Amino acid sequence: MTTASIRDHSRDQAMRKRAAAVIPGGMYGHQNVAAMPEGFPQFLERGRGSHIWDIDGNEYIDFMCSYGPILLGHAHPKVDAAAAAQQAEADCQNGPSSKMVELAELMVATIPHADWATFAKNGTDATTWCVTIARAATGRKKLLAAKGAYHGAAPWATPRLNGTTPEDRANIHYYTYNDLESVNAAVAEAGDDVAAIMVSPFRHDAGLDQELVDPAFARGVREICDRVGAALILDDVRAGFRLHMGGSWESVGVRPDLSAYSKAIANGYALAAVVGNDKFRDGVRQVFNTGSFWFAAVAMAASVAAIEAMKEEGAVEAMSTTGGLLRHGLATQAESYGLRVRQTGPVQMPFLTFADDTDYRKAMLFTGEAVKRGVYLHPRHNWFLSAAHTAEDIEQALEVTDVAFAEVRKVFGEG
Amino acid sequence: MTTASIRDHSRDQAMRKRAAAVIPGGMYGHQNVAAMPEGFPQFLERGRGSHIWDIDGNEYIDFMCSYGPILLGHAHPKVDAAAAAQQAEADCQNGPSSKMVELAELMVATIPHADWATFAKNGTDATTWCVTIARAATGRKKLLAAKGAYHGAAPWATPRLNGTTPEDRANIHYYTYNDLESVNAAVAEAGDDVAAIMVSPFRHDAGLDQELVDPAFARGVREICDRVGAALILDDVRAGFRLHMGGSWESVGVRPDLSAYSKAIANGYALAAVVGNDKFRDGVRQVFNTGSFWFAAVAMAASVAAIEAMKEEGAVEAMSTTGGLLRHGLATQAESYGLRVRQTGPVQMPFLTFADDTDYRKAMLFTGEAVKRGVYLHPRHNWFLSAAHTAEDIEQALEVTDVAFAEVRKVFGEG
Repeated sequence: MTTASIRDHSRDQAMRKRAAAVIPGGMYGHQNVAAMPEGFPQFLERGRGSHIWDIDGNEYIDFMCSYGPILLGHAHPKVDAAAAAQQAEADCQNGPSSKMVELAELMVATIPHADWATFAKNGTDATTWCVTIARAATGRKKLLAAKGAYHGAAPWATPRLNGTTPEDRANIHYYTYNDLESVNAAVAEAGDDVAAIMVSPFRHDAGLDQELVDPAFARGVREICDRVGAALILDDVRAGFRLHMGGSWESVGVRPDLSAYSKAIANGYALAAVVGNDKFRDGVRQVFNTGSFWFAAVAMAASVAAIEAMKEEGAVEAMSTTGGLLRHGLATQAESYGLRVRQTGPVQMPFLTFADDTDYRKAMLFTGEAVKRGVYLHPRHNWFLSAAHTAEDIEQALEVTDVAFAEVRKVFGEG
Repeated sequence: MTTASIRDHSRDQAMRKRAAAVIPGGMYGHQNVAAMPEGFPQFLERGRGSHIWDIDGNEYIDFMCSYGPILLGHAHPKVDAAAAAQQAEADCQNGPSSKMVELAELMVATIPHADWATFAKNGTDATTWCVTIARAATGRKKLLAAKGAYHGAAPWATPRLNGTTPEDRANIHYYTYNDLESVNAAVAEAGDDVAAIMVSPFRHDAGLDQELVDPAFARGVREICDRVGAALILDDVRAGFRLHMGGSWESVGVRPDLSAYSKAIANGYALAAVVGNDKFRDGVRQVFNTGSFWFAAVAMAASVAAIEAMKEEGAVEAMSTTGGLLRHGLATQAESYGLRVRQTGPVQMPFLTFADDTDYRKAMLFTGEAVKRGVYLHPRHNWFLSAAHTAEDIEQALEVTDVAFAEVRKVFGEG
């Protein structure tokens, strides 16, 4: 695996040509590999546990986990069996199935701050819904969000402004993550009109080093919300269930009023959720929100099975263990090559950056060398562990990253 | 079936109690049956062809088709087989599967105005995306939309304003459907800043009689868009593939620049699409838009199979035939009871209202009597036929509606 055998990507290349004719730019969004190093396949075919295969049959150890959704490994038998059993009865109907109630009960039982749950399809559905619930409940307009944080691709949130209008963000004031003074300044700016403060569980802005939450910041934001009567919204779309089964701020002892979930809650089946406390129950009732597939049963059956499996398998602990092995191994290797790297964020959602690499050239070379040898990392986005990753996977991946570090050292020298 | 045997809803009642504890209001959105007549189940269990079963085992002929998604009948064998085959390989991955390209090619081959396609999860994703593409392509801000039209549940579109802000609609000007003068007035109001005019294929506002498009209106709107350099956006989310495989305005000979699809495009699997012409290809590239599950392969495999099956089965024609039988039968029955009713919209998406029934009391009684006898209609929302409905289904349903009309006559008298 460590040998960069010449991998065949001819089917991928042919498919990219076909795609370019019928999909603008050939692909869009976060799964567009146009800006990725050579060797990253655009089209994938199969996943089993921690391994994936592209449409040319090349195999990879997967450290992106579909950008988060795959938490228990690809094609998890219990989750897929629950989904298939539900699919055999019905999925999208004139009303929900009883699985919706089971899932809401399970989320309420699992997440201490949750008194209720509602469901949608996209992470953006959930973050947007949290904001409208807060506005309805408080009768106020302003949202405070961290500069540079990703809360979805809707016009109010998308990181690229093309196609949006200034009015889409007219009611948003920005603070700096982990800087309580900046939150206070944003509150002052927004006057008496703060409906909600939205926080990420830790700073995971694309392309930057990650930054864990300062517990004093988390407590401070909670206090500000209580003082001004605003909702504290935790955007747990990306991290939910990877750090803590009870919500990603349980470890710092701070409970939000509303949390947005998606990505991993059904191990890859399309689902999003908002959970919240009883203070905001009436706000939910005031807001009309719905979607053609929001009540569909299969993803909910999958989610029930997935959350149960996460608990049974001790998924958080498993990812923490393998994530720790990976972090230690990478640190040791980088040091051995005299390369200064930063590994940031929780080990279940690792990210590695090189010193003096603002143009990502080292990261591009590193991940490009890795992918050629069957290890799927990302140069600019945090990675994801799953509970299916084994110590052997990490060992094999480290054999590859050792070669990749050697290449970085060769091309860029020490430092 | 015509006898209103006392149907057991005890499991549904028990499930509603459980739901009320963990879902605000017990349910939300368009599938909340709180305002529906007694006898409508909240929770459903199974679907086969044109028939559905609730969680108490009560059977219904389904004239809502999951509010649109089910176009070929529930659990269509070819669609479900294609989905299962894809699921056995992978669904949500680090990149799309080749099914995405196949589906984009199929939509481009099927819809004359489509030069490209992109995919998302909700109808609202698609309508919103159309607007941002138009804004990016034109460099303008204003959207024209019909008063009372439903284009989704996002803050800019939701019919209930709670939780939204005035700024969410600051760039929308409203016209009256089928009234070209009102479009011209809205254009004048918006000045030189019109990015797009959004149209429904016909007027299908909730609670009102439906209204087919006036071909002169469609041509006029197309001309206005061409004159002012705005995008003509067709919101085909609700009607797409039920009226015409090539887009719902093909029958009036008017082609939009951008169309939003969702609901029926994968026969119940969660998927949405935007298709458009080459004039707007670059606009798509400028807009960053994405979602965790937007590239997932199973719904795309289902959509390829569904679109092919629609063509093979002549689904549009089949729904047109059975829809015609239903409309004729209902008209004859209503007349025989001296009841004045209006049946409006295309026969594949029927709707019936009673004269002098602004409070829906007659409609509530009618649909309540029908559901008790196993025919699932809706008092305030248009209905949906599927290609799985047979002449026998229509005959059986008409036996039930005859009894329901008799009840309306008995309670409300003639007229």
